Amino acid sequence: MSDKNKKQGHIENDPSYKGLQVNSGISQPPSINPRIAERLKNKRKKYSIDDYVKGILDGDRGILSQAITLIESSKYEHQKIAQEIIEKCLPYSGKSVRIGVTGVPGAGKSTFIEAFGKHVTGQGHKLAVLAIDPSSERSKGSILGDKTRMEELSVDQNAYIRPSPSAGSLGGVARKTRESLILCEAAGFDTILIETVGVGQSETAVHSMVDFFLLIKIAGAGDELQGIKRGIMEMADLISINKADGNNVHKAQLARVQFENALHLFPQSPSGWSPKVLTCSAIEKTGIDNIWDTIMDYCSHTQQNGYFEQRRSEQAKYWMYETINEQLKDGFYQKQLIKDQIPDFENKVLNDEMSSFVAAFKLLDAYFQDIKNKE
Amino acid sequence: MSDKNKKQGHIENDPSYKGLQVNSGISQPPSINPRIAERLKNKRKKYSIDDYVKGILDGDRGILSQAITLIESSKYEHQKIAQEIIEKCLPYSGKSVRIGVTGVPGAGKSTFIEAFGKHVTGQGHKLAVLAIDPSSERSKGSILGDKTRMEELSVDQNAYIRPSPSAGSLGGVARKTRESLILCEAAGFDTILIETVGVGQSETAVHSMVDFFLLIKIAGAGDELQGIKRGIMEMADLISINKADGNNVHKAQLARVQFENALHLFPQSPSGWSPKVLTCSAIEKTGIDNIWDTIMDYCSHTQQNGYFEQRRSEQAKYWMYETINEQLKDGFYQKQLIKDQIPDFENKVLNDEMSSFVAAFKLLDAYFQDIKNKE
Repeated sequence: MSDKNKKQGHIENDPSYKGLQVNSGISQPPSINPRIAERLKNKRKKYSIDDYVKGILDGDRGILSQAITLIESSKYEHQKIAQEIIEKCLPYSGKSVRIGVTGVPGAGKSTFIEAFGKHVTGQGHKLAVLAIDPSSERSKGSILGDKTRMEELSVDQNAYIRPSPSAGSLGGVARKTRESLILCEAAGFDTILIETVGVGQSETAVHSMVDFFLLIKIAGAGDELQGIKRGIMEMADLISINKADGNNVHKAQLARVQFENALHLFPQSPSGWSPKVLTCSAIEKTGIDNIWDTIMDYCSHTQQNGYFEQRRSEQAKYWMYETINEQLKDGFYQKQLIKDQIPDFENKVLNDEMSSFVAAFKLLDAYFQDIKNKE
Repeated sequence: MSDKNKKQGHIENDPSYKGLQVNSGISQPPSINPRIAERLKNKRKKYSIDDYVKGILDGDRGILSQAITLIESSKYEHQKIAQEIIEKCLPYSGKSVRIGVTGVPGAGKSTFIEAFGKHVTGQGHKLAVLAIDPSSERSKGSILGDKTRMEELSVDQNAYIRPSPSAGSLGGVARKTRESLILCEAAGFDTILIETVGVGQSETAVHSMVDFFLLIKIAGAGDELQGIKRGIMEMADLISINKADGNNVHKAQLARVQFENALHLFPQSPSGWSPKVLTCSAIEKTGIDNIWDTIMDYCSHTQQNGYFEQRRSEQAKYWMYETINEQLKDGFYQKQLIKDQIPDFENKVLNDEMSSFVAAFKLLDAYFQDIKNKE
C-alpha cells in the first residue's frame, strides 16, 4: 500500500498535474488465508525429536515432509536433528520394495510414473516417489517438481511425491535421497520409486539404493544411440519400451525383440534373474500391470534365493564406504592449498613434464603436511 | 662337499660299520657358466640415471628390463631412481598404439597374442607385450609368464614380453604397468599390447591406459553367460570371436552376427567409432590381419577427429586423480585405528543400529583426529 499511496500523493500534490485522478482502490484482503497461516505457524513449531519420530511412524505426511526438509538443510543443527530422527526410524525401515526408474528425457518417465503409481496405489499399496537429479534446482523444478505432469498421483492420498533435493554434489544429493527413503519407509510407504534422469552418474547412485532397476526406453534409433550412459543397460532388471501405442505398437514390439536378444548376450546377473523386456503405453495405461507383476516376480525370486537381503546388506555397507571415500576426496579437493596447486600439476602432466604418479604424490604430501600443521 | 665328507668320515670311523664303502665321487663342475656369471655381474653394476635413460633410448632390452624391475621394486630407493628415469623418458614416450586385450581364460588369449604379435612384427613394427594381472605371483607365473605358449614371439627380436608385476593391489600393479609402458615407448616400441584376464576390475585399469580395447570371445553360450564382468562388452572397440576354425566356423559366424546386432543397441562411443565384430582363428592364423587393419582404421579415424589425443590427455589426468584417490583411501583403510574400529561400525550398520552415513562420519572424525595428534 505505502508505495502506491506515496505515488498517488505525489501526483495529487503536484500543482501542474492535470491528468486523470487516481483514487485509492478498495483495500486488498490478506493474500494468505488466515486459517492456513495459523495452521502453518502451528506446523512450524519446534518439534522434539520424539515428536518427529512419532509423527513419522504415525504416517503424518506433514511431519515426514518437515523431517525430509531437515535432511536437505545444509545447517549443522538441522543435520544433527535429522540424523537422530533417522537413527530412531532405522529399525522401522526396510519393509518396502525399492524401485529405481530411469530413462532419457522424452521417454515419458513422468507419464509412466503417473500411470504406474496409480496402478500401485490401486493395488492397496502406499507409494513414495523420490528423485535424484543433482542438476536440478528447486526453483527451476526437477522433473518431479513439475507435479502438473502427475495430476492424479499428486492428489492420491496413498502417494507421496518429493522432488529431488536441490542442486549439489551427486554424493550429497544421493545421501539425502537415501536418508529420505528411510523415513518414508518408517512412515509406512511399502513401495518406493526413485526416479532419475538417464544421463550422468546418478544412475549408479540410484542403482545402489534400490532392489529393482527399471529402464524406460522408446522405440527408434534416436533413443538407442544417444543420451543413456554406457553400462546402464546392463544394470536394468527390466527394460520397458514405452509409447507402444498407435502407429508405434509394431516398432515397439520389434525393439522389444531386439533388446531381448541383446540382453541374452550379457553375462548373468548375480541375482540369478534374467532381465526382462516389456512394452507399455503410459498414456493408454497398457502394459503397466505387467511391469508391476514382473517386479513382484523379481522380489519373490530374489527373496527365495536370498539375494534380496544380501543385496540390501551390501548396499548398507556400500553407502558407509562410499561416504567415507567421497568425504576423503572432498576434504582433499576442497582444500584451498590443493585448489591453488592442481592446475599447475595438471599442466605438467599434460605436457609430459611430470608423470601422473609423481604429480599425485607431490600433491598428497602437501595435503597431509598441511593437515598436520593446522593443529 | 663338506657335508658329504663328514658323513663319509662318520661311516669310515665307525668300527661297527660293515656295509658298502662309498668313495668321494667326481667333483661337480660349477653349476653356473662362469662367463654368464661374469656378464650378469657386469649387468648388475650400478648404472647412473643417465645410463639407464641412454640405454632405454638406445633400445637396449637388458637395461629396459632392469629399469622395469626398479619400477616393480617395493624398495624406496629403487622407486626414487625409477621415477627419475620415467621423468626423463616421458618426452620420448607416447609415440605408439596402445592396445588392450582381454578375454576369459580359455578364449585363447595367449595363442592369439602369439599370432597377432608375429603379424605385427612382420609388418615391421616393434611390439611390447605387458600385462595387468593383480592375482598373479611371479613364481606361479601369470599367463604371460608362461612364455612356452608364445614360442615364436618370445624369441622375436622385435618383440618384448614382460609378465604382469607380481601380486599386489590392483592400483599398484596398474601403476607399475603404466610406468613400464612409458619406458617401452621410449625404447622405441611403437605397438604396446596390454593383456589382462577377463575377470574383475583390471579391465577398467587397462581400458584407462590404452587407445584401443579388444575383447576376445569364443562362440557358444558358456563364454557369453559367465566370466566376463558386466560392462566390459561396452568398453570394446572390437570384439573378435576366436577359434573360428574347423567345425566352429559356422558357430563363430553366427556369434558374430549376434554380437553385431547387440552392439548396435549400445549408445555410441564418444570416439565416434562403431565397435566392430570379427572372427579369427589364432591357431590357423586367419583373420589376424583383419584385426590389425581394423586397429589401424580406428587410429586414423580417431586421429583425424582429435579423439585419440584428447583421450590420451584425459588418461594422463585420470591417472593423476586416480592415484590421489587411491592413496587417500589407502591412508584411511590401512590405518590400524580404522582397521580396529571398522568391523564394529559395519555390524551396527547391518543391524540398523546406525545409519551408513553416521558410521562413515564417526570413522572419518577418528581418522583426522589421529593424523593431527600424530604431529
